[in-house]
Amino acid sequence: MTVPSLYSAIKSSDGKQKTIDNFASANPIFVCVISYTGTSQIPGITMAGGSSHLIAFTPAADAEFLYYGKCKCIPGVPVTPEGIPTPALITRAVLMKSKIASLIVDAGSKIKPVLPAISFDIKHGGNIIEEEGLCRSDSIKAFENGKLLGMQLALITDMVIIGESIPGGTTTALAVLTAFGIEAKFKVSSSMPVNPHELKNKVVDIALDKIDNLIQLRTDPLTLVSLVGDPMIPSAAGIACGAMSQGAKVMLAGGTQMTAVLCLLKALNVSLEKICIGTTSYVKNDESSDISYLVDCICDRVPILSIDLGLEYSNKEGLKSYKSGIAKEGVGAGGASIAATLKLGSHWTSRALLRTLEAEYENSIEKNLTHNQ
Amino acid sequence: MTVPSLYSAIKSSDGKQKTIDNFASANPIFVCVISYTGTSQIPGITMAGGSSHLIAFTPAADAEFLYYGKCKCIPGVPVTPEGIPTPALITRAVLMKSKIASLIVDAGSKIKPVLPAISFDIKHGGNIIEEEGLCRSDSIKAFENGKLLGMQLALITDMVIIGESIPGGTTTALAVLTAFGIEAKFKVSSSMPVNPHELKNKVVDIALDKIDNLIQLRTDPLTLVSLVGDPMIPSAAGIACGAMSQGAKVMLAGGTQMTAVLCLLKALNVSLEKICIGTTSYVKNDESSDISYLVDCICDRVPILSIDLGLEYSNKEGLKSYKSGIAKEGVGAGGASIAATLKLGSHWTSRALLRTLEAEYENSIEKNLTHNQ
Repeated sequence: MTVPSLYSAIKSSDGKQKTIDNFASANPIFVCVISYTGTSQIPGITMAGGSSHLIAFTPAADAEFLYYGKCKCIPGVPVTPEGIPTPALITRAVLMKSKIASLIVDAGSKIKPVLPAISFDIKHGGNIIEEEGLCRSDSIKAFENGKLLGMQLALITDMVIIGESIPGGTTTALAVLTAFGIEAKFKVSSSMPVNPHELKNKVVDIALDKIDNLIQLRTDPLTLVSLVGDPMIPSAAGIACGAMSQGAKVMLAGGTQMTAVLCLLKALNVSLEKICIGTTSYVKNDESSDISYLVDCICDRVPILSIDLGLEYSNKEGLKSYKSGIAKEGVGAGGASIAATLKLGSHWTSRALLRTLEAEYENSIEKNLTHNQ
Repeated sequence: MTVPSLYSAIKSSDGKQKTIDNFASANPIFVCVISYTGTSQIPGITMAGGSSHLIAFTPAADAEFLYYGKCKCIPGVPVTPEGIPTPALITRAVLMKSKIASLIVDAGSKIKPVLPAISFDIKHGGNIIEEEGLCRSDSIKAFENGKLLGMQLALITDMVIIGESIPGGTTTALAVLTAFGIEAKFKVSSSMPVNPHELKNKVVDIALDKIDNLIQLRTDPLTLVSLVGDPMIPSAAGIACGAMSQGAKVMLAGGTQMTAVLCLLKALNVSLEKICIGTTSYVKNDESSDISYLVDCICDRVPILSIDLGLEYSNKEGLKSYKSGIAKEGVGAGGASIAATLKLGSHWTSRALLRTLEAEYENSIEKNLTHNQ
């Protein structure tokens, strides 16, 4: 088996090596935005957390996993019903290996993580088929607090990576994209092996049907996002806006959810010169969604960087499954892996990555399984 | 009038230029810990906030001033009864001038600031003559959360500056120092022109009298601090400990309150090789307190860096008064000024500093006065 250098496993959607190098940083910072939308409680929308009552715990548990390698608000770690661990495992492993600092932003999480988190002081989001995604004042506050934070971070780093954990977030992302006139149906990804497009489309139709003056509202983006979005979207957009306003580069680390953030930034007339999306090849090449199409609809100059983590070569079943379309991405796993690889340089190989991930898997998942038996 | 370069206005307690240079950083980060102790409600203990019902607002207002140049939780800005503005004015001006990033830590503030703050999730502190300073579990949580934050910050910077805003904090600091066996009475400073030593000593005597097993408790420092201290002390100590554990330098930016933080670190056997105190010459040379004595009692190798801000040369009465012993220090003003000066280098003069401070004064204080008339 040939193990290529990991640097060569990073691709840019524009095919240019220069684009990848542009987003390299010796000292980036990773920000994980944890949030909640009541939309996640619609049966069949998400499998994050494994069962419906655990869904609300997933963002806090992901954040705790990042900091401690274990969770505090739940026993064990977040896994899918198939036993696939949260992508936070990947994020933690690569951030630690590359010594990239991480900060947790609590932007309307329902369960609070047991760790020092930056609070945006907003309420958790509602179920968009029944109520607004978040209240308008929280949408504005999330964006403004994000801006303030992003501006401070840009003083200490040239590159801010923004990841997220919000179960059900691809559905609210779909609603936001659709609200802004993008034909996003059947294009957003899912953490589940079979993408429940029909259900998501139906939820979005119901949510959008409640809005009378949709076209008009496109000129008031933060209000539109508050009606059918979730608290993560204006928060991440605010951080990106603030950081870029002070000259930093931004990587939106995630799958199709991050296109909703991009869409909001575009609607707010924020310059998109210094932003990219960073994700896994599992999202980029996913046949049940189309992140390239979504980004092109918003701004065709925004590159998508993707990394092939080579998880199919792992001897751990829980990691192998990423390749077969389960989990795929989340908690900024893809973007964090790209940033770590760009920071670590050429001596960091696919094999070294796999060893790092497997060691984390053994430490946090397998030990835990043994412990519980 | 000769205006010397500001670099030469920084002195180290050990007389060595090398010590000052050791704490220079091109990319430091400033952390402001805001907190509350019920001890501040004892009449005559503090003048922060100007009147007793405003005392609880001062930390939040200081933090807001740092980020916005104005306050949101109160009209106007925190001033002493004499009209002297909060030292946050100095901190904000020098941080902005030197482009040093700042983060706000909410470690038990009673009033929450309107900005994105890192929450340590602890309750505000009690009045130590009536109750414990904070509960034991919060003292531990404050330290642990501080450590986690400090460790992350050390990945992004080589130097963490820790400031504070907690009215009444010199009294709880005195109680902690005394509890650890240091003869600190008549040695702690005050933001008031006449230092109410007798009152502080009486408060501390009452607080310590309630503890049966004082000597024994010295081996359980976080418990001892919880009994007679305040939430800022274990929080700042935790941040310092975490940052230094990952190789960063730490500057405790403040007056005699910071010696209580140092005392806790020493009691916890944390190495004090990479830490200093950074303050104003107004505290260092204060005749009604003795920070040098306090530091020497704890660890004579910890340098005190102090800066002469030359405020007596200002044409603003509100700034001139610092020299005459009002306010003197707070919100990390001295340490932030030192770090800014070390970052900005030799072309940054006393005159430039004064212009920067006066501009901030005009923008935030004078405009506000005119506006209110």
